[in-house]
Amino acid sequence: MRIAICGAGTVGSGVAEILQGNRALIEARTGSSIDIEILASRSQPKAEVFAGLTFTSDVLSVCGDENIDVVVELMGGITDAKRLVEDALKAGKSVVTANKALIAEYGEQLFELAKSHGVQLRFEAAVAGSIPIIKVVQESLAGNRITQLAGIINGTANFILTEMAVEGSRRSFLDVLSEAQALGYAEADPTFDVEGIDAAHKLAILGGLAFDQPIRFKELVIAGITQVDPSDFTMAKTLGYCIKHLGIARKVDAQLELVVGPCLVPMHSPLASVDGVRNGVLIESDAAGETLCTGPGAGAGPTGSAVVSDLIDLVREGANGTSLGRRVSRVETLSVLKAEDSRSAFYLRMTVTDESGVIAALTAILAARSVSLDKIFQQNLTDNRSMVVLITDQIRQGELDAAIEELLAHKAVVSDIQKLRVY
Amino acid sequence: MRIAICGAGTVGSGVAEILQGNRALIEARTGSSIDIEILASRSQPKAEVFAGLTFTSDVLSVCGDENIDVVVELMGGITDAKRLVEDALKAGKSVVTANKALIAEYGEQLFELAKSHGVQLRFEAAVAGSIPIIKVVQESLAGNRITQLAGIINGTANFILTEMAVEGSRRSFLDVLSEAQALGYAEADPTFDVEGIDAAHKLAILGGLAFDQPIRFKELVIAGITQVDPSDFTMAKTLGYCIKHLGIARKVDAQLELVVGPCLVPMHSPLASVDGVRNGVLIESDAAGETLCTGPGAGAGPTGSAVVSDLIDLVREGANGTSLGRRVSRVETLSVLKAEDSRSAFYLRMTVTDESGVIAALTAILAARSVSLDKIFQQNLTDNRSMVVLITDQIRQGELDAAIEELLAHKAVVSDIQKLRVY
Repeated sequence: MRIAICGAGTVGSGVAEILQGNRALIEARTGSSIDIEILASRSQPKAEVFAGLTFTSDVLSVCGDENIDVVVELMGGITDAKRLVEDALKAGKSVVTANKALIAEYGEQLFELAKSHGVQLRFEAAVAGSIPIIKVVQESLAGNRITQLAGIINGTANFILTEMAVEGSRRSFLDVLSEAQALGYAEADPTFDVEGIDAAHKLAILGGLAFDQPIRFKELVIAGITQVDPSDFTMAKTLGYCIKHLGIARKVDAQLELVVGPCLVPMHSPLASVDGVRNGVLIESDAAGETLCTGPGAGAGPTGSAVVSDLIDLVREGANGTSLGRRVSRVETLSVLKAEDSRSAFYLRMTVTDESGVIAALTAILAARSVSLDKIFQQNLTDNRSMVVLITDQIRQGELDAAIEELLAHKAVVSDIQKLRVY
Repeated sequence: MRIAICGAGTVGSGVAEILQGNRALIEARTGSSIDIEILASRSQPKAEVFAGLTFTSDVLSVCGDENIDVVVELMGGITDAKRLVEDALKAGKSVVTANKALIAEYGEQLFELAKSHGVQLRFEAAVAGSIPIIKVVQESLAGNRITQLAGIINGTANFILTEMAVEGSRRSFLDVLSEAQALGYAEADPTFDVEGIDAAHKLAILGGLAFDQPIRFKELVIAGITQVDPSDFTMAKTLGYCIKHLGIARKVDAQLELVVGPCLVPMHSPLASVDGVRNGVLIESDAAGETLCTGPGAGAGPTGSAVVSDLIDLVREGANGTSLGRRVSRVETLSVLKAEDSRSAFYLRMTVTDESGVIAALTAILAARSVSLDKIFQQNLTDNRSMVVLITDQIRQGELDAAIEELLAHKAVVSDIQKLRVY
């Protein structure tokens, strides 16, 4: 199989490294070879692994090249990548991509295009690095009705939250962010990672596969990690939780709930031990039960490994293979649950004046809105103030938000109210 | 696709339940249906899910039935199952099996048979229930050189070790075994699970796939969990470890090390949090890094889910699909490392008389054999005796065993010496 690698960055170098370094192994396993026919990139490639490869800066030219069987899109971004993928599919070439934004926002129309031209569009590398989560959802659990999927799917955010949680450190978000940038775990502009956009792209892809329907990216409710305070880690730990940035997709009655944001996760949950830049996805399904997969969520080797697994599947299945990426038909279509209708337990943290009767007054406001409490924790601060932390029972978010408005209007509450979902 | 389910036990009922309960979903996802043409079992089926299926007690007859495309072997045991699988493959029918003993002991010749008849033999359900570990090793990591694989692959043993580790319980192996039997987690004859045979079957299969060569079951060094004492859990915890029954396959220079037995696992290892009847497999590979998959290792639903995933792959790939189960050729063949040449850190526990100079004498014996120590812990017992626990640095097992012989000959050592590998 002859491929074009389009994009000469980190992932491109990882793919070239694997295909060259493990060439004999891959040939022995598949009975076939995967040859890099050409490297295409607008800028001159720098990595040593690319030395010796035929190079073109005219990326789109690979689509008209009869020597190319498969186009590997690793440029990133949307506009040019979309043009390349469309042209390749129209030219009858299968495409392998690591581009989560492209698949999250235009996957549906690209899958249709691939189908109409009798070729495949594969994207294992688009979500969670080397964790084979696309294959697990699409193939291994294909006989299951998936009920819930929750993932730590942004390594940058998980690194920052893990560092902030180190006992006694009380480091701020911005402090740890600088460290992550120095270590190369966060971009100079970290917006996509810390504001939850990247995780939302991945959740849109995973949720779409798990629930057999396209998810419009704009329907997702997205929160990042910038508002998580050092005190939240201390309080969460006291109450038996850690804090993780999760993407959650779950079926609630006949609706689909999609949430991206920081959550309190019970310490005994398998997701609680997924630390640092690692990713992890937990899937609950009717027959298979709880399946957890964890691994490195990014990097040349891990993401390259996922790209190569797609290439090997293309070799193995040949022209007749059908990825389940495009579901043939649909059993049902779920509408997306509105944020205010979402039901969950929540964590609330606020500062109150230290007068007698304050807790009674606040809990009365909550009780009047049917918000019952699972846990309550109070800690004296200086200046006659206290920090109050509440864990609610399951409650409709709209109800809780109304109660929070009333709490904020109460004279004893002298801070904003931090609200985090409890997973 | 028309299938015969052969075996009307737990897994058979799980498969029937999934295929019937999720029929519409599977059809929508694959564009095809999977029909149970016949149920074959020597004994009359009892589960309600089988009602309405055509039944035969002449199991081998399904091989000659032209209405059957795929034979699903869920009888267990070896002799009859082997005959059924051979006859089915010779009749040009693909086979899906959950039979770990059959694949571990006769996989090589059965894969050859399948290949020569142009059909597939699939076995995702043979290892670790619903965890898609066969697919992950064979497909997702197919571009990787795997360096090490370690798995908690027997749910019964993991349940017993988890219960024995509950703080302060100090329950004996036999006590917890009775509970496991009462809960249905252990068989009336628990030999296969608690002596490590079942885990060894699974390791032989996984190791063979990971290292691209058949593993002869008899080459495995197998230990079970019957010799683990309540005091080992207390000591392990004190030193920062838990105890797990692991199957380990790893490449050491140009040899393959295969170990099945109870090990001390550092509390920070991802395997440490795989508790109860759950299974978990951790794979280290050159590009993908550390991949961990966990989930339920047994049961009608989980194992049924794995069988159904194989059936769906057969539907999806059609007659042209080639599972990577049979590797086309081999890059290298590793010899199996002898047990005495295995290098590891080890945990030693012994009771000694409480005299001055005893520790000095014992450590001198070890030092003379080049056994250096990472940790040493002594606890006074009654009767002027002490429990001594040592964690060695990496040492060749043959050297350590010789040192242990010398320790046992020393008059101050008044117990057997417990030896556990440190993972």
